[in-house]
Amino acid sequence: MIVGGVAGGATCAARIRRLDEDAEILVLDKGPYVSFANCGLPYYVGDVIRDESNLLLASPDLFRKRFNIEVRTRHEVVAIHRTQRTVTVRDLETGRECEEPYDALVLSPGAAPIRPPLRGIDLPGIFTLRTVPDAREIRNWIDTRRAQKAVIVGGGFIGLEMAENLVHRGMAVTVIEMAAQVMPPLDPEIAEYARQRLESHGVNLVLANRVVAFGQGGDGTLSVCAQDGAEFEADLVVLSIGVRPESQLARNAGIAVGERGGIRVDEQMRTCDPHVWAVGDAVEVKNWVTGKWELMPLAGPANRQGRVAADAICGRETRFRGVQGTAVCGFFGMTVALTGATEKALSSAGMKDFETIYLHPNHHVGYYPGAQAIHLKLIFRKSDGLVLGAQAAGEQGVARRIDVIAQAIQMKATVFDLEEAELCYAPQYGGAKDPVNFAGMIASNVMRGDMELAPWEDLATTSALLLDVRERHEFRAGSIEGAVNIPLGELRERLHELPRSREIWVNCVVGQRAYYAARILAQHGFRVRNLSGGFKTYSAFHPEGVRQPAVV
Amino acid sequence: MIVGGVAGGATCAARIRRLDEDAEILVLDKGPYVSFANCGLPYYVGDVIRDESNLLLASPDLFRKRFNIEVRTRHEVVAIHRTQRTVTVRDLETGRECEEPYDALVLSPGAAPIRPPLRGIDLPGIFTLRTVPDAREIRNWIDTRRAQKAVIVGGGFIGLEMAENLVHRGMAVTVIEMAAQVMPPLDPEIAEYARQRLESHGVNLVLANRVVAFGQGGDGTLSVCAQDGAEFEADLVVLSIGVRPESQLARNAGIAVGERGGIRVDEQMRTCDPHVWAVGDAVEVKNWVTGKWELMPLAGPANRQGRVAADAICGRETRFRGVQGTAVCGFFGMTVALTGATEKALSSAGMKDFETIYLHPNHHVGYYPGAQAIHLKLIFRKSDGLVLGAQAAGEQGVARRIDVIAQAIQMKATVFDLEEAELCYAPQYGGAKDPVNFAGMIASNVMRGDMELAPWEDLATTSALLLDVRERHEFRAGSIEGAVNIPLGELRERLHELPRSREIWVNCVVGQRAYYAARILAQHGFRVRNLSGGFKTYSAFHPEGVRQPAVV
Repeated sequence: MIVGGVAGGATCAARIRRLDEDAEILVLDKGPYVSFANCGLPYYVGDVIRDESNLLLASPDLFRKRFNIEVRTRHEVVAIHRTQRTVTVRDLETGRECEEPYDALVLSPGAAPIRPPLRGIDLPGIFTLRTVPDAREIRNWIDTRRAQKAVIVGGGFIGLEMAENLVHRGMAVTVIEMAAQVMPPLDPEIAEYARQRLESHGVNLVLANRVVAFGQGGDGTLSVCAQDGAEFEADLVVLSIGVRPESQLARNAGIAVGERGGIRVDEQMRTCDPHVWAVGDAVEVKNWVTGKWELMPLAGPANRQGRVAADAICGRETRFRGVQGTAVCGFFGMTVALTGATEKALSSAGMKDFETIYLHPNHHVGYYPGAQAIHLKLIFRKSDGLVLGAQAAGEQGVARRIDVIAQAIQMKATVFDLEEAELCYAPQYGGAKDPVNFAGMIASNVMRGDMELAPWEDLATTSALLLDVRERHEFRAGSIEGAVNIPLGELRERLHELPRSREIWVNCVVGQRAYYAARILAQHGFRVRNLSGGFKTYSAFHPEGVRQPAVV
Repeated sequence: MIVGGVAGGATCAARIRRLDEDAEILVLDKGPYVSFANCGLPYYVGDVIRDESNLLLASPDLFRKRFNIEVRTRHEVVAIHRTQRTVTVRDLETGRECEEPYDALVLSPGAAPIRPPLRGIDLPGIFTLRTVPDAREIRNWIDTRRAQKAVIVGGGFIGLEMAENLVHRGMAVTVIEMAAQVMPPLDPEIAEYARQRLESHGVNLVLANRVVAFGQGGDGTLSVCAQDGAEFEADLVVLSIGVRPESQLARNAGIAVGERGGIRVDEQMRTCDPHVWAVGDAVEVKNWVTGKWELMPLAGPANRQGRVAADAICGRETRFRGVQGTAVCGFFGMTVALTGATEKALSSAGMKDFETIYLHPNHHVGYYPGAQAIHLKLIFRKSDGLVLGAQAAGEQGVARRIDVIAQAIQMKATVFDLEEAELCYAPQYGGAKDPVNFAGMIASNVMRGDMELAPWEDLATTSALLLDVRERHEFRAGSIEGAVNIPLGELRERLHELPRSREIWVNCVVGQRAYYAARILAQHGFRVRNLSGGFKTYSAFHPEGVRQPAVV
């Protein structure tokens, strides 16, 4: 018996059938659909996906015919009786309840959008987006009210996808995010690229602020009140603050949940009750890079979990290896993606044995028309070079590089392996040195001691000499505050101008010339460090604007 | 002393400088440029890259200023005197020769286009493409002669890139290829997708034929004579039959070359002479997937080799791990890529312990507009599931999946690792199950014994019952010759129609429904195999057209 369809539950049901032609399989879902494309909902609101039927992936009829699986939609499981191995099922159409027995129970109830108990939260026009009916209601609201102004509460992945889609519908969009950055899972200097892109497409971003109440004027217009006193008018409000695992049914039955509120399972997706499994957004998963339990409401892991639970139920050896946190989000032509651990996650897990590098390579060779920069941050273990995580933002080729690094992380690759990676190259596809190779080479330089990194966070307080080795005209157009300029081509002749008593931190645009300069200086006995990723990284850390140098 | 610039030589020179500020470094190149983008040349001919200066990556002046490296272009090394550790250098401008001493010599002479000694081969209008002047000459020839018709001899990667670029210039293009397929490194059924794409864009493909002579009419029009007597008119002929390693200088000096004619080196890129290294297109490399020595004239490996040689010369521990054969080629909106071993390569290496599967997943979820199929072939070791190779063709996301599998192969991943890969997913980027996951899942099904594969090559001779489980209307539109049709949804009720004495080979469109059917049949005691990749794979194996079934 499977409670909840969609990704994890439906996958589990179909897999059980493939393994056991004789099993009786019953899927219960309280919603109207057993399997729908929830990741597509923002795009249905945005009219990129035009036909609602495209979102419905498999009907109960298909389950019956193809898999000999019985599906009952609009049926809610309201209680689990573990001793008797039965559940109480309520038919939501008739209200009637009955008992159904199980041998193996799989909980796949998903997660519910968070709807904080703020004043005015139940006013008409304030929506969450989790189901096909939710999306339909938002579409209808926009169409019938001719909604012009939207406020999105929450600047995470779904919030930003919604922002793009509502702009696509012609609306003026404000996003209010509690954190000082959009996309809170990312490190802030990478999220900065997303901020710039959103603002350049007219999205009004309100960061480090939170919504405290909603009101409504006489004409029906909503007002969204922020903590700092600001008010925002809206014809439509979408709450995308996150989701909460639907673990109440399990809790009520005495099934253990973890600290994050998700159902706790073992590597076979089994709960504390050996006859009850759980999969999908309702469970906590072990992030095997950081070793921490997390909520990771993503479709990929949910699918894998469904397969693992099915295998376990059918008596197969199996194991869910945990998650590594690969995710991607796109809006306004930009792709932002990550895999493995962020610096944030490592720091909050108390880990210190890591280094981070930045680079900004073109997605393909510069001499072929249309090259676009990929802003890439790679994190690796200092002691042995193990790749721990990567984040990237750019227009082209971002998911490709993050996927390669995701596969590398899965296989416990080191930065030396990335250096040697043999990837697709033709002028329109990459470079003889792919961005992944560059990341590996730079990190390997650090590992081998050929390049020492200057910590970006100490830039404001360092007593080091800041040396910019770009050409004069580049330096003049904007530079790191306090830096002096000696173009790389003049460096060897001007070594006498540099101090031997003081550390030198070198930068250029992206880090390549600075690396060359650092090698020259190190071999001439200077103490030198590299500001990884150069002026482009500086700009990401200092979005407020870059000072013009007073003296050149 | 480095003989030959471009990828391997220039990289090696720059790396030596980074490791040793005091080394005297001299780069000699017989051509006019020390570093140019040879992979960009077809696109310069095609006017996609418009400005020749874009192809020139680094000038001798930049090498001097930035790296303190002396570069002499138009200087040819004509002899190596290994005992004295000197070379004879000829200044191609003046004809003067002099001796130059070396401590370490790096040979990076590249490879020369093959120009077979056919009748008429030296007629004006017959070109090869390897250098910037070559490309310039072809451009000029097209412009001044208003060339309309081109014959390209050789249907490999460069030949097809040329075909696209000449079509882009408005020319009528014929490609003549000796093999029965284009892109000879690929297995033929994957190359088939390239053939279709080229022909649908008007390229006249002449396969399994070879050029035997060239002639010229009174008006200057060339005629290209093929072995079977056919003649093709042309205003322009481009020879892209392949390249031959420039190993004569090394041979003359008694440096060992391998069976394929390339300079033989060890893992430090050292030749048989401990003071002489060699890198790039002139050397033979070990393919570590097949264990065979190969010529692999690609920029990525050349760059890595340059770095390895530099490290070795500077006394660092280093190792070139060999190549795995990752390559990509694009034309007319299609991308074809491969990594690791092909079935062809494994068979010719005498290896038998492998299986191949086919799949045709969408590059992103089907419900998001614009989904395109990726035609993917995965090869893995039967005994343990080790991933050996992959080939793919499609419009979108091809290089990304091949890169992920390339990284997996490098890390010695198994198909079970691909099954579990956690890759980027959002509707416009992929699927909750990425094409790489699908490949891993299908292969894992084979490894676990859940699905037995029918060998495509035995289709014509098998006594098995061919069972097509698609819907009736799909079957009617075209099917495998001799197949009977039972739609999957009816299979459980119609099991009695199927023979128990005879093996059953199942197919659908791409293999998913056939897999479901095979599971049903296997569990009911039938002997069943799956025709991997279904009717789409059948169509690739049978490009001559698909028979309509006589009886349904």
